[in-house]
Amino acid sequence: MIQRIAILGTGLLGASAGLALRASGFDGKITGWNRSAEQGRLAHEMGAIDEVAVDAIEAAQTSQVTLLCMPIYATLDFMEKLAPVLGPQQLVTDVGSTKGMISEAAERLFNTPERAAFLPGHPMAGKERGGAALADADLFRGAVWLFTDDPNPQRTPVGAELVAEWRKWVQAMGSRILDLDPTRHDELVAWVSHLPQFTATALSALLEEEVGAAPELKDVGGRALREMTRLGASPFSMWRDIAHTNTEAVERALLALEQRLAYLRENLRTPALREEFERANRFRRE
Amino acid sequence: MIQRIAILGTGLLGASAGLALRASGFDGKITGWNRSAEQGRLAHEMGAIDEVAVDAIEAAQTSQVTLLCMPIYATLDFMEKLAPVLGPQQLVTDVGSTKGMISEAAERLFNTPERAAFLPGHPMAGKERGGAALADADLFRGAVWLFTDDPNPQRTPVGAELVAEWRKWVQAMGSRILDLDPTRHDELVAWVSHLPQFTATALSALLEEEVGAAPELKDVGGRALREMTRLGASPFSMWRDIAHTNTEAVERALLALEQRLAYLRENLRTPALREEFERANRFRRE
Repeated sequence: MIQRIAILGTGLLGASAGLALRASGFDGKITGWNRSAEQGRLAHEMGAIDEVAVDAIEAAQTSQVTLLCMPIYATLDFMEKLAPVLGPQQLVTDVGSTKGMISEAAERLFNTPERAAFLPGHPMAGKERGGAALADADLFRGAVWLFTDDPNPQRTPVGAELVAEWRKWVQAMGSRILDLDPTRHDELVAWVSHLPQFTATALSALLEEEVGAAPELKDVGGRALREMTRLGASPFSMWRDIAHTNTEAVERALLALEQRLAYLRENLRTPALREEFERANRFRRE
Repeated sequence: MIQRIAILGTGLLGASAGLALRASGFDGKITGWNRSAEQGRLAHEMGAIDEVAVDAIEAAQTSQVTLLCMPIYATLDFMEKLAPVLGPQQLVTDVGSTKGMISEAAERLFNTPERAAFLPGHPMAGKERGGAALADADLFRGAVWLFTDDPNPQRTPVGAELVAEWRKWVQAMGSRILDLDPTRHDELVAWVSHLPQFTATALSALLEEEVGAAPELKDVGGRALREMTRLGASPFSMWRDIAHTNTEAVERALLALEQRLAYLRENLRTPALREEFERANRFRRE
């Protein structure tokens, strides 16, 4: 039934979604738009989209499904712009990393009988660097795709069908769907995604000051150091919005890790160190 | 010139050294010994050693080079045992992760005209799990192999030659040698190796408490979470000795990271967050 999709934002996630849809057999039309024309052109060249749209709003208006693939505040801006110009036969969905504000905007602006449907989504996939050039048809394979849908949306039957069909495409792209309440989502990703990122950022920034001036010493750390600092390359532009829209949950997680590190530091020579290693070992047990 | 090597401790590093020596063209005899006979048998089966010795001391006495591949306190024990029974035509070297105590013992017990030579070494290679079963002839390829040798050892000409030849074998196994003062070594590895490990342990232990009871939520984190907690699987048995023999440097590094995380937490909504990301980005720039 879905025959026309607009991908607004053809960076890493947007271009990967285009490639993944194609690889999973989607044979309708995919229109792409990107604020920087270069990324749109690149996504087009690699076959992630069929055409580059000049106007994002018009691309959404002429599509059944609009996929927003941009930072959170940009997503919220587009939600405000799209809500009044789309109709109840259309679906908007997104890939934003925090869902509290987006789910609130979805309830306020969409999911009524007169408005388009909105399905808040969040694929747990990415790379430490963004951009269409790194796009990958398999990016979502084996990943969890979270949805934080309104439990009682007032959608038209067509809107409800588009939602059901988009969920099927997400599975076709290789992802496993997990439905969560938006508040629980934001708390959970603070632990399993935002905390690891901010830890890698703090560790990388600290090491840049301590050993950054002696490049030969970076090599000394080997694989362990490379892995623990890989996310240090992540762009501020994306993480600023996450820090701003999930501040309290991230603060709680960071404070908990600070306390945990202090506990470990105070117990380097006591039996509590063994218990801490055993607890960590349990987390890694399959 | 080196024709007979004893590897005491045929776990991951010892068995890998045997395989790597063979792969780099060493055609002398390699005798192996391990406290648990099972690991010795395994190393023998995979061709890392030519024979399993029943007695570690005897294996060292009948070899030109003895490579100690065991935790630090066990290494120190063997240094005490071997010093009186080896002669000035022999070399002992090791792979211990901290070098202050080992270098001190080397100066006290070895490197005189009457005693064997001792070259304190530390290859920056490993895996999050130990054991001969994971041994790999390429483990040391591309790694840095640190040495913290006495700047003025009183070695016999044969002892000095064995040291020079062992350094060549280390390079033949694919490692790059870096010579450091033992104190500087222990400070440096506190930053680039021990801090990443203890951070992964603290993060994994924390997450085990927060989301460990819900295994489906671990999957949500994806690659970033897996990488940041991989070292959580590291065995306490090895890290206990590191925590005990490099306590002050590790305490300093942990405290610095606690402060860095607190700074980041207090600046989630200020321009300082951008600067912290940019500093982290610089660390990851090639």
